[in-house]
Amino acid sequence: MPQEYLSRLIQKTDSKIVLLVLDGLGGLPKEFNGLTELETAKTPHLDQLAAEGTLGLSVPIKSGIIPGSGPAHLALFGYDPLVHDVGRGALSAAGVGVRIKPGDIAARGNFCTLDTEGRISDRRAGRLPNEESAPVVDILQQVQIPGVEIEVRQVKEYRFTVIMRGEGLNPALKDTDPQKTGVAPLPVVPTKPEAEHTAELFNQWIKKAQAAISNQPKANGLTLRGFATDPELVSYKNAYGLTAACIAVYPMYKGVASLVGMDVVSFEGDRPEDEFTALEESWSKYDFFFIHIKKTDSMGEDGNFEGKAGIIEGVDAALPKLLELKPDVLIVTGDHSTPSIMKSHSWHPVPLLLWTPGVHLPDQEKAFGERTCSRGGLGIFPAVDIMPLALAHAGKLAKYGA
Amino acid sequence: MPQEYLSRLIQKTDSKIVLLVLDGLGGLPKEFNGLTELETAKTPHLDQLAAEGTLGLSVPIKSGIIPGSGPAHLALFGYDPLVHDVGRGALSAAGVGVRIKPGDIAARGNFCTLDTEGRISDRRAGRLPNEESAPVVDILQQVQIPGVEIEVRQVKEYRFTVIMRGEGLNPALKDTDPQKTGVAPLPVVPTKPEAEHTAELFNQWIKKAQAAISNQPKANGLTLRGFATDPELVSYKNAYGLTAACIAVYPMYKGVASLVGMDVVSFEGDRPEDEFTALEESWSKYDFFFIHIKKTDSMGEDGNFEGKAGIIEGVDAALPKLLELKPDVLIVTGDHSTPSIMKSHSWHPVPLLLWTPGVHLPDQEKAFGERTCSRGGLGIFPAVDIMPLALAHAGKLAKYGA
Repeated sequence: MPQEYLSRLIQKTDSKIVLLVLDGLGGLPKEFNGLTELETAKTPHLDQLAAEGTLGLSVPIKSGIIPGSGPAHLALFGYDPLVHDVGRGALSAAGVGVRIKPGDIAARGNFCTLDTEGRISDRRAGRLPNEESAPVVDILQQVQIPGVEIEVRQVKEYRFTVIMRGEGLNPALKDTDPQKTGVAPLPVVPTKPEAEHTAELFNQWIKKAQAAISNQPKANGLTLRGFATDPELVSYKNAYGLTAACIAVYPMYKGVASLVGMDVVSFEGDRPEDEFTALEESWSKYDFFFIHIKKTDSMGEDGNFEGKAGIIEGVDAALPKLLELKPDVLIVTGDHSTPSIMKSHSWHPVPLLLWTPGVHLPDQEKAFGERTCSRGGLGIFPAVDIMPLALAHAGKLAKYGA
Repeated sequence: MPQEYLSRLIQKTDSKIVLLVLDGLGGLPKEFNGLTELETAKTPHLDQLAAEGTLGLSVPIKSGIIPGSGPAHLALFGYDPLVHDVGRGALSAAGVGVRIKPGDIAARGNFCTLDTEGRISDRRAGRLPNEESAPVVDILQQVQIPGVEIEVRQVKEYRFTVIMRGEGLNPALKDTDPQKTGVAPLPVVPTKPEAEHTAELFNQWIKKAQAAISNQPKANGLTLRGFATDPELVSYKNAYGLTAACIAVYPMYKGVASLVGMDVVSFEGDRPEDEFTALEESWSKYDFFFIHIKKTDSMGEDGNFEGKAGIIEGVDAALPKLLELKPDVLIVTGDHSTPSIMKSHSWHPVPLLLWTPGVHLPDQEKAFGERTCSRGGLGIFPAVDIMPLALAHAGKLAKYGA
């Protein structure tokens, strides 16, 4: 959980905090002395906020560490990812709205294609579209084994999630995905003696499930990974006294938000405007809003420098809708960097903009970019400090000691 | 105590360190793009030191945390305030020169005015002046109960301190001050079973004390808060090998300094010049000097922007007297920020200036202010690192490892 001293200082106010996360926001120049994606993007609204507010660079996990999306978001939410090990399975289940309990085991599943020898020929079953994977998930839902209850849910395309419920289960299990083609899926292997029984149960289930889908044209096999149980994170309500909403398009981000007790807001569409409309509609009901923009990261992963800059420009263009709501604290940042030239997540610290109507430390920067943020008044600081800063600027923290 | 690795590295030198603390030094601009109190103040001497030295911003406790004066000073002295919980009672007793021992319980007391129904009508007994409170403190000193020894000392105006000495005492007690008028003072309530007996003893004493002052015109009631025992802080001598002096006007700061083993220097007057004269007179006897200037904080708390800038200018004008002594290390900073526009302590990191005759990292800043400090060579760093930096620049730390 966030530092215990924080929860003791929480005081209730009417102020509202918005945390706008552009996934993989941080970038790098294409050539020596060039501009990054964020510096290239024309962002008049963000630049105005930068001039009025305070800038900094946040370090998601630790210097030099390349963050996964789960740990990076935990850090943004104030939970030290080196302390809280949230398994992919738990995120996956939470992302489709299934809340697992301590002792339940969730895993992320992928459909794959097996050749006649049982070896994987396609690790994603031809990126099976939703309408083709749904009936196969229906088949898996019928596969049960004695002594435990199994739930299977479709996630997206070739992805699904499996939840096992029963007595004495343990998530210390290795992935069955061999991460390459030409070999068979691995059996479930326990990494601790106390997980032997759980491994056996999963292997039983996999055997029956495998048999049930063996006639499928593409999705005739499956792999499981990220076995995990409920991380038992202290909720935003208990940690910060906040009623919090998550506005996100992708399941994984809804998942991590719901694990810390945020309500996931339903809405139509997937553009920034749609997310800001959802914000407007839920404005009166919450005092903290996490808004997640996915496509900055997707463009970065695709190596699409201009595409990423374009997504940032789109967010900037839609921003007045958000600003009209007059948040008391607005933080714009990313969960990690995804430089287009690297086509992957990276360890670089992430640009961060903190804006309030008044009580922030002034700096001299006038635009939102990597270079300005590196000279900003917030310095380079751990991402787990973002929430304390947000709470402080919102007047939600009492004095520590007399 | 300060990090154990430090005390192992301490080496004795003749060098002298001065830590000049302007309470609540950090500030904020009155309007967008305006100057802070420190940036507004004309400070030619501090600016000269800034140009020659290295600047930075120190974080008193943690990002976003608003420090009380006690914890903030502990941090300046190198003691992590999240580890060392020094109660107000212990500070209050130490502030009037009473050293409590482990097991003694000290509380801060306020005289209040009670109406005929026993309800508080004035929480500070009309801010009773010293000459009126002294005889009432005399009365309280006569009030004793069986089994323990009680000492009462006047602090200032309506404030006093009570120390209880005896066997098996425990400070886990709630304040009796209800923090509002129109209700009676609360009884002493234990927060742990092992403090039940102590609560009973304090309640006995309060009953007798109350009866003894019931005829007083203003101070006919009392409240107690901040029950605490000796925090058992390792002394400056043992932690750093320093003989240290405290030059301060207000009791609370003398208190926290004496808790870490500093000698409290007596002197006349309360202007910066008077404090620097006291420094000059004690210069040969110590190798570390903590000088505390209170009024920057008081002006900030009053919302007096120009007043705060004026106090800073007064310190700057008196500074040549200090500089003539040729300290080997001079650090000028605050214990926390008290922006006039907020009229309260705040979480903002605090401007810090480190000056030595030579061996500090150069930066490019030429004036002492929040913006220059945010770009300074020391960066933004935890206040508990100030003492290690002071010792290092004074040549008092040996190499770590071969």
